Amino acid sequence: MSTTSPEHPTAASDVVVESLIAALGDRVSLAESEREAARHDRSGYVSDGVPLAVVTPETIDDVQAVMRIATATHTPVVVRGAGTGLAGAAVAGHGEIVLSMLAMNRLLEVSRDDEYAVVQPGIINADLNEQLAPHGLWFAPDPASRAISTVGGNIATNAGGLLCAKYGVTREAVLGLKVVLADGRMLELGHRTVKGVTGLDLTALMIGSEGTLGVVVEATVRTRRLVPGAIAVISATFGSVEDAARASAVITASGLTPAVMELIGESALRHIAAHLGLPATGGSQLIVQFDGPGALAEADAALTSITSLGGIAVLSSDPVEAERLFALRRSFHPSIAVLGTVLIEDVCVPRSALPAMFATIGEIEARYGIEIPTVAHAGDGNLHPNFVFEGPEVPAEIWAAADEMFLAALRLGGTLTGEHGVGLLKRRWLRDELGEDQLELQRQLKRVFDPLGILGPGKVFGA
Amino acid sequence: MSTTSPEHPTAASDVVVESLIAALGDRVSLAESEREAARHDRSGYVSDGVPLAVVTPETIDDVQAVMRIATATHTPVVVRGAGTGLAGAAVAGHGEIVLSMLAMNRLLEVSRDDEYAVVQPGIINADLNEQLAPHGLWFAPDPASRAISTVGGNIATNAGGLLCAKYGVTREAVLGLKVVLADGRMLELGHRTVKGVTGLDLTALMIGSEGTLGVVVEATVRTRRLVPGAIAVISATFGSVEDAARASAVITASGLTPAVMELIGESALRHIAAHLGLPATGGSQLIVQFDGPGALAEADAALTSITSLGGIAVLSSDPVEAERLFALRRSFHPSIAVLGTVLIEDVCVPRSALPAMFATIGEIEARYGIEIPTVAHAGDGNLHPNFVFEGPEVPAEIWAAADEMFLAALRLGGTLTGEHGVGLLKRRWLRDELGEDQLELQRQLKRVFDPLGILGPGKVFGA
Repeated sequence: MSTTSPEHPTAASDVVVESLIAALGDRVSLAESEREAARHDRSGYVSDGVPLAVVTPETIDDVQAVMRIATATHTPVVVRGAGTGLAGAAVAGHGEIVLSMLAMNRLLEVSRDDEYAVVQPGIINADLNEQLAPHGLWFAPDPASRAISTVGGNIATNAGGLLCAKYGVTREAVLGLKVVLADGRMLELGHRTVKGVTGLDLTALMIGSEGTLGVVVEATVRTRRLVPGAIAVISATFGSVEDAARASAVITASGLTPAVMELIGESALRHIAAHLGLPATGGSQLIVQFDGPGALAEADAALTSITSLGGIAVLSSDPVEAERLFALRRSFHPSIAVLGTVLIEDVCVPRSALPAMFATIGEIEARYGIEIPTVAHAGDGNLHPNFVFEGPEVPAEIWAAADEMFLAALRLGGTLTGEHGVGLLKRRWLRDELGEDQLELQRQLKRVFDPLGILGPGKVFGA
Repeated sequence: MSTTSPEHPTAASDVVVESLIAALGDRVSLAESEREAARHDRSGYVSDGVPLAVVTPETIDDVQAVMRIATATHTPVVVRGAGTGLAGAAVAGHGEIVLSMLAMNRLLEVSRDDEYAVVQPGIINADLNEQLAPHGLWFAPDPASRAISTVGGNIATNAGGLLCAKYGVTREAVLGLKVVLADGRMLELGHRTVKGVTGLDLTALMIGSEGTLGVVVEATVRTRRLVPGAIAVISATFGSVEDAARASAVITASGLTPAVMELIGESALRHIAAHLGLPATGGSQLIVQFDGPGALAEADAALTSITSLGGIAVLSSDPVEAERLFALRRSFHPSIAVLGTVLIEDVCVPRSALPAMFATIGEIEARYGIEIPTVAHAGDGNLHPNFVFEGPEVPAEIWAAADEMFLAALRLGGTLTGEHGVGLLKRRWLRDELGEDQLELQRQLKRVFDPLGILGPGKVFGA
């Protein structure tokens, strides 16, 4: 990685840029605005400097050409989709090539009979589902950013989202991948069949690898048939977040399978109410959606649990009214963003540990004298505690509070990150979860794919 | 790997055996019968010689002690469960240590609320489900050998079975693993949460690695709630296997989700009838089971498709009668085993390609003048063509016919092995499916885990 300042590129940087332009022409941008934009994602992290160039390949050949140049010149490459990442893996710095996959955004093939689709990585989740709908199919991974995030980004982070407790995470939705390696060779991993055990499962290894092993240039994804029948949504208010968390744990423990189960913590609900100009009623909100033929029967059973645990609930099977009930949840991020800089966290615990995890967050709030507005995908034990602060840098005391929270999640049998990934933000805790031996083994596996260390250097595994 | 004959062990082999006995006492067996038994599995393959010893560890410490000795003495180790494998990965040869996991067979922990169980690898599938039933839970992977196969073996091959079109393969049922590496260190992979993206997904990489990367000593598996409600089974006779295959493809393409959909080919059905002393009615049989609250409605819809495609069908929702309908399918292996030596194959194609794959098998039968009795898990496009021959060795012409079949499956977008694994039997086709670059990369990944090449040497990746 070059150490020169971006204002005064060395001959070496010039050579890289000239090689890229010679090979890819106007698919290479040196525009200051584009290079500057690639220093950011949604993590709040900003890289140390401006990358060399933003290359926007249109074909697999283009990607291979970029990687051959990168390998020949030992130039680092950061693969980037829509830049909606929340951990910093797509943030590009000084001396790096940005490989933007946004122009490789087509749906290439659909098989309704075999329930798969072949897509380029830059396709936006919402666009894919719009194009699949006429075939009676949909793609289940649905991060909150689905209107603007890419399937390639889903694959990079093994994205989850609101629906994954019932419909699975990205790993369960990918059958095969075409991947360009650091040296420009292309591999075809996996298959189009629903089963297959020929050799090691490198498809699964790529999913969640955050751009550190190779560049995904095509994906065969599993699609699902659009669910016929009703939906039913319950929105319930509880006096405390622990009560709401207990109700969510009871709902899953009773064998019901919500398609969506979102929990809004107490301070989160207060900020949402303020943001929307609603009266501050206090307490915590649980929103549960069921779908499929048994939706109403399941919702009735859940309603019984909710009211017996002290929740005050409304049930609706009208899609418009249901959407209105979810509006509270969707207003969370805008309501917090106005308060200051936000560090969005992502711990995941066994579902039954949700009440304990919320209690721990409450203790940390009290001890540090801070608010940690929190929402959770309660169906799979995944919490998004938000730390709010002034200015661009995360203050030491916020890191200290986050550190306590991470270690508490690990103690409860949980994990640092349920769906956002490690990127830059969680590297310091990676050893706590994996242990020294596993971390070193993972670094060795990374070196097999990328011996020069040019793919996302410093991301996930450290410098 | 030693080249001495087992009758005259070298001093080196003596040293290994003495070290094992010193560390593990009577958990080391030198009995000829046990060592001889470990030369076999259900693939028909027999190893080149008798292994050094059969070690049956009772604890993780025992496994670590064995692997430390193996590493110190560069002695190969073959990990073995119940020996029900169909590809030869658990076959132990001359100079090798057999690590039998059968004594580590306990259910250690169950969480009903979080729907997981912690098990030792030697637990038998059927025993696990018997112990889970009082908790209202079950473990979905159900290879045909479930009465005698181990969960560790399921993990080694990423086992599927009859139910996996609806309920997923082993990879979808494993949350985390404890693995002892070749050098005796232990890693804890994965987690107890339903989501988690901290670092590379080594849990998924281990699943299906057939004993080549490490020794699984504990698994946290995802369990499911026992399905309430009715079952409904359809058994339908078609004039030809292509017609039956077309019906199965129509059933899945129409959005129905059978829990089980088994297809019995024409010569397979003839041999089953002869074996059971039934009149030979000819044709092909399709058996479809639905479960859950919508079972009967789904079965009615499937019945309409089946009869419109020329099938003659009976429908039953009586569990005893349903079991009788499945008896035909269960008689397949016994009916073929009496004919001679059997090579059980395992190709998988996209479901819509099932009719084409059956047609290709028919052409190969005609051209070679042989019968290839075939059954299929039609819900996921997985065929088990059986090659029958005289004597212990696979004749060259059978290999040639199998070779044509494998390449046809690959041409149809399929894979060499849907659920049995590569082991020894399918190594020669691995390059055809993976390509040279991916095969070499997989070998390098294997070396990261096992630099001395002592775990299952020669298995999957070749000598």
